[in-house]
Amino acid sequence: MNKGLSDSFKVYHTAQVRVLYADTDKMGIVYNGNYLKYFEIGRTELLRALQLPYADLEKHGAQLPVIEAFISYKSPAYYDDVLSIDTICSFERGILLRIHYSIKKDKSIISEGYTLHTFIDTISKKPIRPPALFIDTIRANSIDSMGNELMEIYL
Amino acid sequence: MNKGLSDSFKVYHTAQVRVLYADTDKMGIVYNGNYLKYFEIGRTELLRALQLPYADLEKHGAQLPVIEAFISYKSPAYYDDVLSIDTICSFERGILLRIHYSIKKDKSIISEGYTLHTFIDTISKKPIRPPALFIDTIRANSIDSMGNELMEIYL
Amino acid sequence: MNKGLSDSFKVYHTAQVRVLYADTDKMGIVYNGNYLKYFEIGRTELLRALQLPYADLEKHGAQLPVIEAFISYKSPAYYDDVLSIDTICSFERGILLRIHYSIKKDKSIISEGYTLHTFIDTISKKPIRPPALFIDTIRANSIDSMGNELMEIYL
Amino acid sequence: MNKGLSDSFKVYHTAQVRVLYADTDKMGIVYNGNYLKYFEIGRTELLRALQLPYADLEKHGAQLPVIEAFISYKSPAYYDDVLSIDTICSFERGILLRIHYSIKKDKSIISEGYTLHTFIDTISKKPIRPPALFIDTIRANSIDSMGNELMEIYL
Repeated sequence: MNKGLSDSFKVYHTAQVRVLYADTDKMGIVYNGNYLKYFEIGRTELLRALQLPYADLEKHGAQLPVIEAFISYKSPAYYDDVLSIDTICSFERGILLRIHYSIKKDKSIISEGYTLHTFIDTISKKPIRPPALFIDTIRANSIDSMGNELMEIYL
Repeated sequence: MNKGLSDSFKVYHTAQVRVLYADTDKMGIVYNGNYLKYFEIGRTELLRALQLPYADLEKHGAQLPVIEAFISYKSPAYYDDVLSIDTICSFERGILLRIHYSIKKDKSIISEGYTLHTFIDTISKKPIRPPALFIDTIRANSIDSMGNELMEIYL
Repeated sequence: MNKGLSDSFKVYHTAQVRVLYADTDKMGIVYNGNYLKYFEIGRTELLRALQLPYADLEKHGAQLPVIEAFISYKSPAYYDDVLSIDTICSFERGILLRIHYSIKKDKSIISEGYTLHTFIDTISKKPIRPPALFIDTIRANSIDSMGNELMEIYL
Repeated sequence: MNKGLSDSFKVYHTAQVRVLYADTDKMGIVYNGNYLKYFEIGRTELLRALQLPYADLEKHGAQLPVIEAFISYKSPAYYDDVLSIDTICSFERGILLRIHYSIKKDKSIISEGYTLHTFIDTISKKPIRPPALFIDTIRANSIDSMGNELMEIYL
């Protein structure tokens, strides 16, 4: 029973990334596919902030492949821009992780999107339930400790 | 008047791509962000099949930035897989291009998605209407010439 | 004894690649790091031409990590260019694979370079000698069968 | 007269990068081509430390394309590793920039290499001499201000 992991459970984090030349294309802006790399940075740093680095999760036997991704490109990102990636994580149907991202430049949102993840076994690649370590760590680092003001804005 | 470019207008093409080592990640599968590169191959080869290479479109003053992208990952793609990218292109509200992709391995769909594009001026980057060259070329290469059997399956 | 695999042994192949938008950067040319992906295509298709796909080599227990790479960028490559990748493979000190690449556009060389590879065990990642399958396949597909006229030009 | 920019002139900087999932390949390590992206981070942050961001250099009319690159891969880099990129920049024949990189993990060097750059005009793409802004900025931020102890180790 994962009672603590209801669909309303959410955690939040902000990470930053600087746009590389390697990220741009001949249109002079960040190539559309590279936003999914920024999304990866967002969720990786969210998990690290929860004291559960994704690298540790894999060592404990669980991987989180992406099964769905959506990106809305509102304004371009340019070379050397410093972007903020606001990341919110929530459970869906108890077994899926839905992660929402807002990419901001100078406080205005230039891109939004989400990724949807399942849990699979690192070795067998078969679907598994969210591992105890993951559940325990999330409980121990609950969103309340990050301040309710975030809640009002984002949740 | 773009009468010929109603929302029901659609063109279809299939391209192929072989998965590189560079495309994979440590999970042993194609990294989620790289599917948008495969989508690019799909729409580029669709435009080329229409005798309107995207490179020519840019030279004639129009670019097609992605404003929205969606990907559903159904099964993984692996190193050295040969993937087929079925691509369908349609107009939306007369000014947007919606391109749908089905990525197949051995005839079963492993990934689906779409990208949504606006037309902008190559220099000013301001929104423009679909250029005459684009409309004329599409008219000259209408889907009827590709066979109605495709229509029954895909449209 | 690998008598047949002297340092003078060489095999040759040509592959092609079309430059993607994803490969370019804001300078309007192919990003410098992406040439190593083109080199990968060159050696992958060389091995396939030898009827020894790298994917099979890995299944038989051997991997070929890059331990050194060099690239000379003579002229830029642009979006939608079709590039030829001439690839030559030779042994070095019996245990290293040296692969040389010439990237051509319209028959003129725009980039040259090489990669140096060791053989390691797929599982243990420890160094191994070139596997029998590799040696046998190379012997069975010797360069003589590809025509001596190549030899005069390239070797 | 570029008297101050003799071949012996050198500047030094260290940057950090964390390895993304996107950077790895199915061998479980960072893909060989992605080190050139790390090298880019090294030289970008070196120029920024000199108070001459590369983005500004481009706006002032100069670009620094790579004309040669070399990488020696000594030990693999893994997912989530934090790597240090020690970067040293020197002039060569008065018109070329040679940038040397040492990538370290836990103080041991796992990769080394260099890139060689020319100066070209941002618009015409024709070769130019190093711009005055570049020379002045380097003079104003001379290596002495970074401490001689670095010199003993690196130069």
